[in-house]
Amino acid sequence: MRAGADLAAIRERKPLIHQITNYVVMNETANATLSLGALPVMAHAVEEVEEMASAAGALVLNIGTLSEHWIEAMLLAAKAANAAGVPVVLDPVGAGATRLRTDTAKRILDGAEIAVVRGNAAEVATLAGREAEIRGVESIGAADSGAELATAASSALGCVVSVTGPVDHVSDGARTMAVANGDALLGTVSGTGCMSTAITGCFLAVASTPLDAAAEALVAFGVAGEDAAVGARGPGSFHVALYDALYNLDPATLDSRAKVEG
Amino acid sequence: MRAGADLAAIRERKPLIHQITNYVVMNETANATLSLGALPVMAHAVEEVEEMASAAGALVLNIGTLSEHWIEAMLLAAKAANAAGVPVVLDPVGAGATRLRTDTAKRILDGAEIAVVRGNAAEVATLAGREAEIRGVESIGAADSGAELATAASSALGCVVSVTGPVDHVSDGARTMAVANGDALLGTVSGTGCMSTAITGCFLAVASTPLDAAAEALVAFGVAGEDAAVGARGPGSFHVALYDALYNLDPATLDSRAKVEG
Amino acid sequence: MRAGADLAAIRERKPLIHQITNYVVMNETANATLSLGALPVMAHAVEEVEEMASAAGALVLNIGTLSEHWIEAMLLAAKAANAAGVPVVLDPVGAGATRLRTDTAKRILDGAEIAVVRGNAAEVATLAGREAEIRGVESIGAADSGAELATAASSALGCVVSVTGPVDHVSDGARTMAVANGDALLGTVSGTGCMSTAITGCFLAVASTPLDAAAEALVAFGVAGEDAAVGARGPGSFHVALYDALYNLDPATLDSRAKVEG
Repeated sequence: MRAGADLAAIRERKPLIHQITNYVVMNETANATLSLGALPVMAHAVEEVEEMASAAGALVLNIGTLSEHWIEAMLLAAKAANAAGVPVVLDPVGAGATRLRTDTAKRILDGAEIAVVRGNAAEVATLAGREAEIRGVESIGAADSGAELATAASSALGCVVSVTGPVDHVSDGARTMAVANGDALLGTVSGTGCMSTAITGCFLAVASTPLDAAAEALVAFGVAGEDAAVGARGPGSFHVALYDALYNLDPATLDSRAKVEG
Repeated sequence: MRAGADLAAIRERKPLIHQITNYVVMNETANATLSLGALPVMAHAVEEVEEMASAAGALVLNIGTLSEHWIEAMLLAAKAANAAGVPVVLDPVGAGATRLRTDTAKRILDGAEIAVVRGNAAEVATLAGREAEIRGVESIGAADSGAELATAASSALGCVVSVTGPVDHVSDGARTMAVANGDALLGTVSGTGCMSTAITGCFLAVASTPLDAAAEALVAFGVAGEDAAVGARGPGSFHVALYDALYNLDPATLDSRAKVEG
Repeated sequence: MRAGADLAAIRERKPLIHQITNYVVMNETANATLSLGALPVMAHAVEEVEEMASAAGALVLNIGTLSEHWIEAMLLAAKAANAAGVPVVLDPVGAGATRLRTDTAKRILDGAEIAVVRGNAAEVATLAGREAEIRGVESIGAADSGAELATAASSALGCVVSVTGPVDHVSDGARTMAVANGDALLGTVSGTGCMSTAITGCFLAVASTPLDAAAEALVAFGVAGEDAAVGARGPGSFHVALYDALYNLDPATLDSRAKVEG
């Protein structure tokens, strides 16, 4: 874990983060990426995703508002990213809520090499074949603890798994870490999970390992959430302050503020 | 009218509000729904809308940025909602501005049972076969007064009609109410009409009747608008404060702040 | 240049600004348009774009998130706008980053009469056949100075060209102006370039010439950026204040604040 150094690297290198994401959060994940210091680009046409993904520092796939051509584009982009050595993070939004979402997440995991899956407990549990309840895109509960789930899912899916919630857990199967940064107001703004996935993409472009990237991203986003909560009067003012906080994150103090165990 | 009690019910039960809406306001209606206390989900693929709508507490259809597959998805979702007893609210954005929008709104009204139509005066007048002028998605004027229009449109369309404007009017044909809550700044932010439709969906999931839901939603949204206007310096700060205000709405005082007649 | 008088005309006439734009910024350009005083409408279905564009005061085309049907809709809308005498502004987002974007921008320029092209240095240089580097949708550098590039591109493309950057340049080939209004924070918010294009559309609906419209729009947007920067704590609070500032722009003082040369 060297969240501060990797944040500084993001700001210096400004990696291009290609995102094929859902309509609801496109502006939000673009602005979170830009506020952190990387360069977002959205492109979903089958005619251009391979070219864009190959030129990127990381590829972010998010299945929050699917349709046929978008699924095809995600698969093409992921394969092109793999071929070019560009790491891919997958956000399986709503896996478990409908068959289309569960199946699409599995198709992407089967069809390409994914560096990190970042989801809530119910989404990750669905993909790992464990018990959970989801309402729309909100996790209502899972049978396993976060640490158990992250560890088991990493083994089942063969990649780093990042399970976010009141406390987040990241695992590569061998090592599992808990990240306790963040604020309850993050749960009151639509798309903060998607933002954490985009930020995972930013760290994937510079970090030593996918596990480091996943943990560092949650530290950075969580610390920004803590800063944004100061003085917030509700979801609206918190949301605005979150971009300010990402922009003002200090690489020099970031690691000292990390609440990481494991 | 028991706006406070129904707001409390929304926060306790957290109904899933499935929204097939336009690209411009997806994030905004998701955040308005979440700030109020319900759970938004956006899903528009024909492969999943029936499954999602059947599991929802209410379905919101908004035709603000149409295309062929989305129209098909709206019709499928509405029929599935009907079959599952899930109430549907329709926002006929821009009906009267182009033939596609007018025809699509009518197709949805003909093809499924709609609990509430929520629109501006020109949109509602167009669907009810009365005179009005629209510029894009903005009502420029209608021949009837709001109360006359809501009453006549409810009879013509066979459902509750909610006409918003400086003063809002809701009618089930037999009873027509005026709701005078709100603030002029609501007209300076894109998508506040769409937000009021999403919030109508939230109340439909818990209220006794569609008429109550429609009126209570406009009271809640209008009171939030009044709170948000305090200290706002323009559309940007007002927009942010609107989410804070929805989040901080107090069920205990909501009914006493309602400006309802009829 | 009569930015103040034309701003007053926008607010009085409230022209309809039809925008076929990218998913990332739709809400943002709609709100910028509305905050300035015009009426935005988004419509992209091939079944309705001709009808909508013909009824508009200006048409805004933005290729930021392309796909096949959207390209077809842009071409149809541009031709209908031409036939109806409605001016068209094109934002070639990411031209140079992928072949699809470069080719689409050229197809639109070849297939319809464009009044203004508004882009960053790399996008404009790509279309004008000059050297530049782009990363995603961000200009990394161009061989020419802004003034040289705007002038040369205007001649090459046969329309007014508006190149934005730390200092903006607009040219109709014969006359080239520099606009130095703005603030560095504009570069930290996703979609501010797209907003400046939308605002160019607003001024096209009322100004005497496309060159005036392009310059006045950059003055108005730049002055709003200067106002928004006062007190901003980062990209989030700046973004919010930008809508407030557009709404509060004063026609009486706007021209005196213009930093225009040439």
